[in-house]
Amino acid sequence: MPRPTAPLGLALDSTSNVPLHRQIGEQIRRAILERRLAPGLKLPSSRQMAAELRCARGTILQAMDQLVAEGYVVAQAGSGLSAAANLPDEMLVWPKVAPRNPSSPAAPVLSRRTTAALASQAIEDTFGSSPIAFPTGQPDRAAFPFALWAKLLEREWRKPSWAIAGALHPFGHAGLRDAIAAYLGMARGFGCEGGAVVVTSGMRQSLALFARLTLDAGQQAWIEEPGFVGTREAMAMAEVEAVPVPIDEHGFAVAAALKRAPKARLAVVAPSHQFPLGTVLSLQRRLELLSWAERTGSWIAEDDFDGEYRYAGRPLAPLRALDRADRVAYLGSFSKLLFPALRLSYIVLPTALARAAERIMTGTSARASLLGQGALARFIADGHLAAHLRRTRLLYARRQEALLAAAERPLKGLLEMSPDLGGMHVIARPAPAIAATFDDHEVTAAAARHGVSVSPLSACYSGRTKRHGLILGYAGTPEADMPHALETLRSVVQAKVRVRA
Amino acid sequence: MPRPTAPLGLALDSTSNVPLHRQIGEQIRRAILERRLAPGLKLPSSRQMAAELRCARGTILQAMDQLVAEGYVVAQAGSGLSAAANLPDEMLVWPKVAPRNPSSPAAPVLSRRTTAALASQAIEDTFGSSPIAFPTGQPDRAAFPFALWAKLLEREWRKPSWAIAGALHPFGHAGLRDAIAAYLGMARGFGCEGGAVVVTSGMRQSLALFARLTLDAGQQAWIEEPGFVGTREAMAMAEVEAVPVPIDEHGFAVAAALKRAPKARLAVVAPSHQFPLGTVLSLQRRLELLSWAERTGSWIAEDDFDGEYRYAGRPLAPLRALDRADRVAYLGSFSKLLFPALRLSYIVLPTALARAAERIMTGTSARASLLGQGALARFIADGHLAAHLRRTRLLYARRQEALLAAAERPLKGLLEMSPDLGGMHVIARPAPAIAATFDDHEVTAAAARHGVSVSPLSACYSGRTKRHGLILGYAGTPEADMPHALETLRSVVQAKVRVRA
Repeated sequence: MPRPTAPLGLALDSTSNVPLHRQIGEQIRRAILERRLAPGLKLPSSRQMAAELRCARGTILQAMDQLVAEGYVVAQAGSGLSAAANLPDEMLVWPKVAPRNPSSPAAPVLSRRTTAALASQAIEDTFGSSPIAFPTGQPDRAAFPFALWAKLLEREWRKPSWAIAGALHPFGHAGLRDAIAAYLGMARGFGCEGGAVVVTSGMRQSLALFARLTLDAGQQAWIEEPGFVGTREAMAMAEVEAVPVPIDEHGFAVAAALKRAPKARLAVVAPSHQFPLGTVLSLQRRLELLSWAERTGSWIAEDDFDGEYRYAGRPLAPLRALDRADRVAYLGSFSKLLFPALRLSYIVLPTALARAAERIMTGTSARASLLGQGALARFIADGHLAAHLRRTRLLYARRQEALLAAAERPLKGLLEMSPDLGGMHVIARPAPAIAATFDDHEVTAAAARHGVSVSPLSACYSGRTKRHGLILGYAGTPEADMPHALETLRSVVQAKVRVRA
Repeated sequence: MPRPTAPLGLALDSTSNVPLHRQIGEQIRRAILERRLAPGLKLPSSRQMAAELRCARGTILQAMDQLVAEGYVVAQAGSGLSAAANLPDEMLVWPKVAPRNPSSPAAPVLSRRTTAALASQAIEDTFGSSPIAFPTGQPDRAAFPFALWAKLLEREWRKPSWAIAGALHPFGHAGLRDAIAAYLGMARGFGCEGGAVVVTSGMRQSLALFARLTLDAGQQAWIEEPGFVGTREAMAMAEVEAVPVPIDEHGFAVAAALKRAPKARLAVVAPSHQFPLGTVLSLQRRLELLSWAERTGSWIAEDDFDGEYRYAGRPLAPLRALDRADRVAYLGSFSKLLFPALRLSYIVLPTALARAAERIMTGTSARASLLGQGALARFIADGHLAAHLRRTRLLYARRQEALLAAAERPLKGLLEMSPDLGGMHVIARPAPAIAATFDDHEVTAAAARHGVSVSPLSACYSGRTKRHGLILGYAGTPEADMPHALETLRSVVQAKVRVRA
């Protein structure tokens, strides 16, 4: 007795964008999974189906070929097609409408570590919104010559050599590495070769790479307290224990560091303009650090990410320029100098580590996109970077001055700011009368709701003792926008704190 | 008695590119550090120095200002300048010529983990050289429309909105995320929203992100054996234990996986074209995997990185399209489809995880450069991606055919290749007569020395049992280059193995 052929009940939509053979395949697949077509059931012949659906037989054959290839339908010599018999039973009880719900409550949706990390995030992110003032780490949006940049990109990609387009060199674009080396020789006073420069996708990647190269998991590194949050994250990425070291008026307190963690073998410091405090590491401390590294075979990561912005005198000589024992890696970034979406940073490795890093970096996440590297190399080599820095140095110095002047009246008795000789931000600290009730996370969140983006100083501390204050980035904030934003900040702070009588 | 003024012995080079004031500063700094200028020693007046060096007094003053700012020189009211007295003693014993040597042999130069990783690298890297044939994972270098791409880039960056240029959204360019979602709906048959798409800088980053989101450190994940090396690396990045699971003729052996690691909560599989074996995961296995994930609250990472290249029939429906319980993340990459330097990949997260991932990703290394994302969005939305895939599908199918035909004679009795229904590579296995002495790492290294880039199959195994063979990527190798490369390969293999009599 021939097995019954299946009643298919297909309905085709000829106005749909989905081709007919795909519609047919989809509906039969679903019918099998929902058990409307029982396992082993014989299907009508392609001729029958074509007649029933009023479509070409070729369309049916195309759909069936696909279902056979997928295993839903099996072909038997001489007896046509039938629904597959060997699908696991439980899968065949397919719900009529596939719900996209998270699974049963018993099954954890997120890992515990992710859940914990989410719980510790104090501030809601505000991606996509464009703050009216004071975002930290944002350069001026009008200062960068985008038309020139677009032309350089176009020229780079019109007919790229395969050495570029197909390149997977872990250190990045050779031309850019040479351009960075030449630029550093001119601007920061130390010689290095392009071969020791690694282009990365950010400061965290640079730091994590260096920590991995030099330290084993569980070893200790000194970091600045307060400091750049990314430093802590990078040490965690490298499974290195970060030991916070206080910053005093001479900068990183080397003596305290030696006391707290005498076995640390890496120091991460920002000597030219400490973040967030703006302190400049004194020469004596610089020499102490270098001496420690040399004596103990330790390493220094010199984070110089806004060393370019110094408004009085020439920038101080970096540690790398004083390093005679090849213990210092120098780290810089273009994302803050040019525009954030660029996401290109670099690390100049100690010469002795360059070859090993090159070999170890295959497959690490430090590798940066090559897309903008050629254009950036041209941009630097043709002098556009130097010109851009000259322009923005004047612009940012003026903006800091304007901010301090504009803030005086509205923030009087609430927040206190002092001038900073460099960088792209200033710190506003609560006046003594409000300090007791001032919570910088609270103020930051409230200000964000009014479009003013400040950052909480206390977030820069990893220890239990945190000082509160607000970090105001002025580089990306036109002078004309400041008074209104400062008024907003004033009313936010007033609403949040109690003034001590 | 006035302290003696220092004999400076400066020598200026007026032909140098280094400005005179920098030359002066550099030499005095060095003299102080090398103790030729004793601590506290008074310096000659600027007038004296200018006269002695025959330069403008302003040049001397500029140099001195800098040295004072750096702390090498101190100014005393009424008595001019002198070398700083408070530099740590040991730093002052500066060698005459600062050597850039690695430090003393006692000090470890690299971390133990880096040293170990280097020792386990069997093959020398060949960055920068352009292999004449068979690199794995390289698309055709002439097929991509670079002129069009350059124009799209130029248009994107000529006048970017700050939402793009200043953007730090962890998931990437909103337009690209939407374009990817629409493309997947059309090409791979499943609906998703741009909101669940994360643009990353590579498959490793996608996988590590997903593993971190869903698993805690120390939990287990099933991976394919043999498989993509990057999967192992990604699991290590996420501190997840990778358990290798064998591939049989139906693909990933779910039953074996359940036996080996019943508590694993993540499966990383490449169902549409397993790497490197090319196996297609059978429908029954697909349903078993989905059923396991749903039953146990586990997750599936579906690596579909060359699912686009299928030369017979339509590509099979991905797991994501069959997933009714929101347990599957779908991973793809553009670097292999378009050109490697692009470094843009993506992951479509389970809907329920998207918001959490967005919040957790701030600061992770998965974030990709935004530089090419706008142009890529246009490229996809305007249909160029679909057209490119149509062209390259024909091209690569032809190349695989050409490779198999060209290889038959020269490799006869040495290497055996079978056709593959998809992908961008084939595997050449040693013929029985030479299998005993065939070492794929050896052959790979020898071939590389002759400019032929093949990959060792055994490197894809993480367990102790490894099968040897060569992976030949044909997508990036023009037909005309094949005969010569295959002759080279033949002589390399003949030189390396003993044929069993």
